[in-house]
Amino acid sequence: MLKKIPSILSPILVKILMEMGHGDELVISDANFPAERIGQRVVRADGHTVPELLKAILELFPLDKYSEYQYALMEVVKGDDVEPVIWNEYSEIIQQEHPDAQVKYMERFDFYKQSEGAFAVLITGETALYGNIIIKKGVI
Amino acid sequence: MLKKIPSILSPILVKILMEMGHGDELVISDANFPAERIGQRVVRADGHTVPELLKAILELFPLDKYSEYQYALMEVVKGDDVEPVIWNEYSEIIQQEHPDAQVKYMERFDFYKQSEGAFAVLITGETALYGNIIIKKGVI
Amino acid sequence: MLKKIPSILSPILVKILMEMGHGDELVISDANFPAERIGQRVVRADGHTVPELLKAILELFPLDKYSEYQYALMEVVKGDDVEPVIWNEYSEIIQQEHPDAQVKYMERFDFYKQSEGAFAVLITGETALYGNIIIKKGVI
Amino acid sequence: MLKKIPSILSPILVKILMEMGHGDELVISDANFPAERIGQRVVRADGHTVPELLKAILELFPLDKYSEYQYALMEVVKGDDVEPVIWNEYSEIIQQEHPDAQVKYMERFDFYKQSEGAFAVLITGETALYGNIIIKKGVI
Amino acid sequence: MLKKIPSILSPILVKILMEMGHGDELVISDANFPAERIGQRVVRADGHTVPELLKAILELFPLDKYSEYQYALMEVVKGDDVEPVIWNEYSEIIQQEHPDAQVKYMERFDFYKQSEGAFAVLITGETALYGNIIIKKGVI
Amino acid sequence: MLKKIPSILSPILVKILMEMGHGDELVISDANFPAERIGQRVVRADGHTVPELLKAILELFPLDKYSEYQYALMEVVKGDDVEPVIWNEYSEIIQQEHPDAQVKYMERFDFYKQSEGAFAVLITGETALYGNIIIKKGVI
Amino acid sequence: MLKKIPSILSPILVKILMEMGHGDELVISDANFPAERIGQRVVRADGHTVPELLKAILELFPLDKYSEYQYALMEVVKGDDVEPVIWNEYSEIIQQEHPDAQVKYMERFDFYKQSEGAFAVLITGETALYGNIIIKKGVI
Amino acid sequence: MLKKIPSILSPILVKILMEMGHGDELVISDANFPAERIGQRVVRADGHTVPELLKAILELFPLDKYSEYQYALMEVVKGDDVEPVIWNEYSEIIQQEHPDAQVKYMERFDFYKQSEGAFAVLITGETALYGNIIIKKGVI
Amino acid sequence: MLKKIPSILSPILVKILMEMGHGDELVISDANFPAERIGQRVVRADGHTVPELLKAILELFPLDKYSEYQYALMEVVKGDDVEPVIWNEYSEIIQQEHPDAQVKYMERFDFYKQSEGAFAVLITGETALYGNIIIKKGVI
Amino acid sequence: MLKKIPSILSPILVKILMEMGHGDELVISDANFPAERIGQRVVRADGHTVPELLKAILELFPLDKYSEYQYALMEVVKGDDVEPVIWNEYSEIIQQEHPDAQVKYMERFDFYKQSEGAFAVLITGETALYGNIIIKKGVI
Repeated sequence: MLKKIPSILSPILVKILMEMGHGDELVISDANFPAERIGQRVVRADGHTVPELLKAILELFPLDKYSEYQYALMEVVKGDDVEPVIWNEYSEIIQQEHPDAQVKYMERFDFYKQSEGAFAVLITGETALYGNIIIKKGVI
Repeated sequence: MLKKIPSILSPILVKILMEMGHGDELVISDANFPAERIGQRVVRADGHTVPELLKAILELFPLDKYSEYQYALMEVVKGDDVEPVIWNEYSEIIQQEHPDAQVKYMERFDFYKQSEGAFAVLITGETALYGNIIIKKGVI
Repeated sequence: MLKKIPSILSPILVKILMEMGHGDELVISDANFPAERIGQRVVRADGHTVPELLKAILELFPLDKYSEYQYALMEVVKGDDVEPVIWNEYSEIIQQEHPDAQVKYMERFDFYKQSEGAFAVLITGETALYGNIIIKKGVI
Repeated sequence: MLKKIPSILSPILVKILMEMGHGDELVISDANFPAERIGQRVVRADGHTVPELLKAILELFPLDKYSEYQYALMEVVKGDDVEPVIWNEYSEIIQQEHPDAQVKYMERFDFYKQSEGAFAVLITGETALYGNIIIKKGVI
Repeated sequence: MLKKIPSILSPILVKILMEMGHGDELVISDANFPAERIGQRVVRADGHTVPELLKAILELFPLDKYSEYQYALMEVVKGDDVEPVIWNEYSEIIQQEHPDAQVKYMERFDFYKQSEGAFAVLITGETALYGNIIIKKGVI
Repeated sequence: MLKKIPSILSPILVKILMEMGHGDELVISDANFPAERIGQRVVRADGHTVPELLKAILELFPLDKYSEYQYALMEVVKGDDVEPVIWNEYSEIIQQEHPDAQVKYMERFDFYKQSEGAFAVLITGETALYGNIIIKKGVI
Repeated sequence: MLKKIPSILSPILVKILMEMGHGDELVISDANFPAERIGQRVVRADGHTVPELLKAILELFPLDKYSEYQYALMEVVKGDDVEPVIWNEYSEIIQQEHPDAQVKYMERFDFYKQSEGAFAVLITGETALYGNIIIKKGVI
Repeated sequence: MLKKIPSILSPILVKILMEMGHGDELVISDANFPAERIGQRVVRADGHTVPELLKAILELFPLDKYSEYQYALMEVVKGDDVEPVIWNEYSEIIQQEHPDAQVKYMERFDFYKQSEGAFAVLITGETALYGNIIIKKGVI
Repeated sequence: MLKKIPSILSPILVKILMEMGHGDELVISDANFPAERIGQRVVRADGHTVPELLKAILELFPLDKYSEYQYALMEVVKGDDVEPVIWNEYSEIIQQEHPDAQVKYMERFDFYKQSEGAFAVLITGETALYGNIIIKKGVI
Repeated sequence: MLKKIPSILSPILVKILMEMGHGDELVISDANFPAERIGQRVVRADGHTVPELLKAILELFPLDKYSEYQYALMEVVKGDDVEPVIWNEYSEIIQQEHPDAQVKYMERFDFYKQSEGAFAVLITGETALYGNIIIKKGVI
């Protein structure tokens, strides 16, 4: 443990966050995401929720102000009658640090495709539906 | 995620628990334990408490009934005016599965020595004082 | 060995089953399947039958309810006068956990193709004809 | 699978049996043996019994006629009221190939010590008490 | 060395032969074959002839009865005035185990192409012209 | 780069600082220290001075309040007429975060011995005489 | 440290510079460059500026006189009102060793593309805008 | 050192020369060749000239008599007013062993392309212009 | 294959013979020797006899003239009524290259001990009793 | 190749020379030295003499002025009637850079022992008797 670094973040995760550059993306996925098949690098945070991790990560991680979007979510599949309330929680956490953050909604398979190109996937224990989120790294 | 396996346990941790044999010991350490220097194998569970993990592990992990002790704690250092209340929590969790479990108290440096010989160290985010615990694997 | 985990499952197999995500597929193959050439990950269970393993795996492994099929079999090659009776056994094992499970029959070379994209191949000692089966992982 | 090689034997096990030389020892252990901590090389045969494997191995593996013992068992611990009936089974299997085979009984901790120096440990799913056995390789 | 396994076969070769599945192919090449560049896996048997090895391998290795050919040879290049007498020796060895075995003759560059897709190349010390042979694995 | 983490610290260094536990020691060495021979883990920071790095590290790294010393320096060799003025700089940096920090002076070969047991050595470009320093990690 | 080699250059960087051949390119990137995702080989020089490193590298590294350009910069994006004053510094450093050096300006995505084909990326702590530079190795 | 093997050849180089098969090619490059970027395998012989190495290699290495060329050189670039006198030296060395050896001249980028497909690149300290040479392995 | 290097010698064996220095020893063992347990490096030559290999190796390998012995054999165990006739063959092969070579006879366990310190063990298919031999490398 | 770095030095050798610290030793050995058995790290410079390499290394490598010796040689064995004239050459090369350099003569087995503790062994093609030399690194 170190000062200023939230204790929920593992050493390997912090190393990866530091190695990411401008425009690189991190997928913070739910517990059922096929992370090990899709991800270029996979970090595990079993048993934690996405909001806990997202909040801790954003204490360190700048979002990309130069991009048209700062984070992305998986669009609700047509015909699926779900209201992803967890998105409100994501939105609040992000806006504390980035009040003007823009979201991009990606169709399900576009989201998978985007995840394959991401720098890393952090798989969590989140079980909320449509709980996956992509964040894009900015500059300091 | 799989049925019957608590979601807080990572895949690598379950693999190691399965590989342990009769009499092998697991250290579940607090957040400040020098796990990476001492442990033969190290698994991380940053951000989780020992009770959460202990409870989940004991759903799968049998304690050793043939040993004189089933778990071990680090003795309070002489002159240290601490009452490790977390031990009660440990005791309750263990007794749910093993009502007759015996504890062994080890002097601080004996505890470190014992940890070096352990099969693995699981380092957690626990911050309670004297929060380290060793559990000894039994047979099925 | 651990409580709740069938003893026929090896530690590395359980680790892989835990790492699989929604929609990932596992091939449980017969003894003659070219698993080592085709498989992205290969786990061996020499000397065991597919039904023994399938039953044990399904105690832990949820099938994908959102997919049009939950498992797949290799279609009998045209002109091949075989009645794969082992399929009945598979069907019974699966229906105990998933009464409405749907099967997909794949033409032989489609089955091989599908296996190349699978998360892993578990090669067994099964010698029954047309004994290969693919199962698709669901969510918890 | 190959002709003449029992299908219960995995490729890596056969490779190791071939690499062993005169006087090298193989531990065939029960399911609870601390194989991964003690063994110089560990091969797994989860879910199989020792007799099944012993029989298959001895189809290929010559015992050491020049040694004072051809196999070794763990002595029943004093005060332990157990009659290891599985030993009769071992004895019959061994005598089919080696009618004059001699056994050596080793005190429990001597057995562990001996296992640490063995070429490999094959861990099985055997659950019979005192089910561990060491076999010593001969020449051809 | 083990009983029933010809002593000319190395441990790694037997392991690979065991891992091969139905339809997988093994190239047994002459001493000048570009095995290390072409082969997916390469095993060496320097100083041995192809007939010695072929005979030993076929004691264990079943040929594929379901394929249109059981083994393949490299067609004599047009204009090359060679009579590959070693082929008779190959034919005799194969027919002892498989009286009806069919051969396929492949044009030189097709033979190389086929070898790139083979499971493994076993390079020998054979110096006879047109001494390369591919064998296709069957089922047991 | 991340917020709150000084940009002079490399990702691998931060990972190692996070992995260190209570009582583990870090050597921050000068440019001529035999770090690669002595260190259990070696991290390089070529071209930077010790004060720059020490200051940045102490923004994150807690010193061990329970130890009799919080940092250690190499005692001036007898007969060596050197006044290590850089020690004042070290002292000031450390006291900003830890006003009561105690130093331990170690004889030259004791210092080397201590370094061999340290968690890691961070080699810098520092060229001041007697510029090596050991810091001991505390708890959070 | 060695004589003649600037102490800011790490051992692994010098090794890579030596291994580069005629026409190979090195990217010296700013602190936010996505080096770890793009680079074939990545070397880190956290906390140093590009001019410091460029100057030190050019003491050893010959530029390619046979190429139409000796170094390349990222063109200012249209509409971006930035005057990259750091380019003057680069120009001066380069001209001390190579008075006639030619620059090539590459459109932003061409620059990324070029970087993917480069021999290595050296990521620095540079924070000036448009601070990335590619240098092309010549002969000796 | 061994008898019959020229002492200038390193153990790893001789191993690679032995592993090469009929038709495989070796590039013996000059000191500025981008060997580490282009070569499938790279062996270094810093400080030696091509003629020294070529002479030593040809004591062991047979050239390919069945190919239309036995060695290849890089064609002088149009407009480049160079007379590569070192070619005469190459020619003499080769003709001592192979009086009828044929050369193929390859355009510069064809030469690079060919080198990418070569078995290995041996990079030397040669500084003569147009000093790169490819040799093609024959049979014994 | 290369000129001057006997084709029975594998590439890895020749590499190891080249790497050996003055006074280093090579064990050429029979088929039952516990090479994989004892040897620091193990090379296999399954199916070949010791005389074939010894003869080929001595074409390249100089014996140590400065040592009191040039090769060593395992003394016949007391009470063992064996006349190791293969020793005559060894003696003849060695004397062709080294007419004055001296042998040292080592007691069985001394021979094993010596083998543990040897540079490498070459395990062969030799089945003659007392067929192991150690040769000591000289200078060129 | 780089400016200022002698072209006879390989990239890996320069990296190792840079990594060495104050007091670390480098053995530059003759062609018959048992470098691969003794050395902690081994670098090869087949075909080069010690004087060539020593001269090139000392252009970069500072000798240790604080030590009682700057380099060491192997004492002529008693009764060995050799005058190692190459030592004069070593002495001249060293004195050009270090006019006051002191030599230490080590008894043969002390020299081997010292070499085992050295940072690295650079094995050369030197064939002069008593041609091994140890140099001790100083500071800059």
